Amino acid sequence: MMRRYAILALDRFKTDAKTAHGVIRYGDDEVVAVIDPSAAGRRVRDVLPYLNSDAPIVAGVSDALQFSPTALLIGTAPKGGGLPPEWRGAILEGIAARLEIVSGLHEMLDDDLEFRAAARAAGTTIWDVRRPPDVPLFSGAAYDVGAPVVLTIGNDCAVGKMTVSLELVRAANDAGRKTRFVPTGQTGVLVAGWGICVDRVISDFAAGAAEQLVLYAAHEGADLIVVEGQGAINHPAYAAVTLGLMTGSAPDALVLVADPRRRQIETYPTPTLSYSESIAIHERLIATVKPANVVGIALNTLGLSEEEARAEIERAGAETGLPAGDLVRSGAGDFYAAIAPRLGKRPPLTATASA
Amino acid sequence: MMRRYAILALDRFKTDAKTAHGVIRYGDDEVVAVIDPSAAGRRVRDVLPYLNSDAPIVAGVSDALQFSPTALLIGTAPKGGGLPPEWRGAILEGIAARLEIVSGLHEMLDDDLEFRAAARAAGTTIWDVRRPPDVPLFSGAAYDVGAPVVLTIGNDCAVGKMTVSLELVRAANDAGRKTRFVPTGQTGVLVAGWGICVDRVISDFAAGAAEQLVLYAAHEGADLIVVEGQGAINHPAYAAVTLGLMTGSAPDALVLVADPRRRQIETYPTPTLSYSESIAIHERLIATVKPANVVGIALNTLGLSEEEARAEIERAGAETGLPAGDLVRSGAGDFYAAIAPRLGKRPPLTATASA
Repeated sequence: MMRRYAILALDRFKTDAKTAHGVIRYGDDEVVAVIDPSAAGRRVRDVLPYLNSDAPIVAGVSDALQFSPTALLIGTAPKGGGLPPEWRGAILEGIAARLEIVSGLHEMLDDDLEFRAAARAAGTTIWDVRRPPDVPLFSGAAYDVGAPVVLTIGNDCAVGKMTVSLELVRAANDAGRKTRFVPTGQTGVLVAGWGICVDRVISDFAAGAAEQLVLYAAHEGADLIVVEGQGAINHPAYAAVTLGLMTGSAPDALVLVADPRRRQIETYPTPTLSYSESIAIHERLIATVKPANVVGIALNTLGLSEEEARAEIERAGAETGLPAGDLVRSGAGDFYAAIAPRLGKRPPLTATASA
Repeated sequence: MMRRYAILALDRFKTDAKTAHGVIRYGDDEVVAVIDPSAAGRRVRDVLPYLNSDAPIVAGVSDALQFSPTALLIGTAPKGGGLPPEWRGAILEGIAARLEIVSGLHEMLDDDLEFRAAARAAGTTIWDVRRPPDVPLFSGAAYDVGAPVVLTIGNDCAVGKMTVSLELVRAANDAGRKTRFVPTGQTGVLVAGWGICVDRVISDFAAGAAEQLVLYAAHEGADLIVVEGQGAINHPAYAAVTLGLMTGSAPDALVLVADPRRRQIETYPTPTLSYSESIAIHERLIATVKPANVVGIALNTLGLSEEEARAEIERAGAETGLPAGDLVRSGAGDFYAAIAPRLGKRPPLTATASA
């Protein structure tokens, strides 16, 4: 059943609600209201035009109920860790109204005894999106999935792997190919309404989690599967997650997502990789398990002028000989059309074949 | 304080007690008795000569108490998952005798209400070795460790990375270099009496766990640090753990541990890598964060004749130009002497240096 979301974003919808913005822009579930007293009476479009949504902004949970929400989404995280009293009150109000509580906070709301008891009493549930389910070890069943699998990789965290994945899914669906998005991070899970935060999975099971997600997408029926990548292969802290997704999702093709201005990995001294070095390392590594090529480069040129963006895209194409583009700036249609012929299935390497 | 272990290995000490054997052979803590009624009255040496231990084997926990143990180590796992009644009884007997309970089982004994309550009542504790502590994200502090860090890598799981690491530590200590072993898996943790099972850490924190272990070893004072590796870089299920250890322990040098007869990764179709391919991939990958070279190849030639082993070692040396040897068969002294000149510190890559 689809959810109808009221999004809790007290006093920070405009400035600090990345999760809320992602769900509004890309979510399969409807957003019927945003709760933020600092912007009450306006509409989402008035505050953030690019989100292209007429959802009303209201002052409190009780005001949102007139729009018949089924779930209250915690759309942003309060600064400093602990939940401030006004958040607690709003969440309890949502529970009392029998809304499902959906949270991407690090803090697990279902572990909070007051919330938990209130939800049980009201007959509703709390979904802590970051809490991973138990998954089996990687089995190799992903190798038998019939639909080609595309995995996004990146030159750093937070360069747009989820956005590129979603734009690619939209373009492929527009082109008549039944395509499913596989969410692996908090916002992606909220956008799709299912998935696993793979970075929260015990490291032994990271690949198994990625495999389960691909199997689920295949089971739902898909002609093409696009997996949201995480981190970067040379990220000093998160490379393990990146590689778990690479081996576990068993991709047939990779799409490199890069912010061309990013010179180092987050706050670490580590330099980002050049396009050609990144392609070479990913392809060589994945070739030891199941060959896959980088089939295109999706650039994040946010903040560049039209001319600068064009120059960066031309440089990426010239350096690598691959289709390149900014899928947000120019739409994903041409990019998808350019990579579509390169999305064939590729079998895993086998010990006998290589002997 | 050092532990004095009684090892619980009911009816399977000889056949199915890898953890017990590891602790007896390599452990810093003393093993004062083994509990196995099927071999009671004999000594460890009589049952398994290569363990080189005179520890007595007794029939039950009460018989072991005369040797003044301080801890009861669950040295093997009962088949089929659940604890059989005779194991429960023995563990409760150990608790009643105020022994610390040390367990490497998947099942967390401290989550068992009966064991937990009994331990609290008796005033003793339960250490579930597989349960990882909370660790911070990788910070980069490992880059400032003064002692060279060596990480073992392998062509598969269970090829001897722990054993090679321990033999290398012994040889380096014998050569007068204060060397510490960094345990990252269950048996390694039990052998050393500290450490973290990195494969049980949430994948986001795998590198952070490896870093904390290296920082601890450095803090304890070490001229050389040898980190036990896990998995294989092309292991379909565990490569994430392998890479988390590579980025997180920030090694200055790698030692490749390989079983030359292993043709595929565990039960997966994936072929094992050739020595030269393995060296190339590990070095290229780690060079994107902090350069490190493979400085030697430690072969596991168990089961080969002396002549076959020599041929394999010569082949490995000829193919790679690196020192090669079987550290169990021939001792680690020569191997350590050959690689010692290659164990210098290497700084991490930095964004400014590469611009």
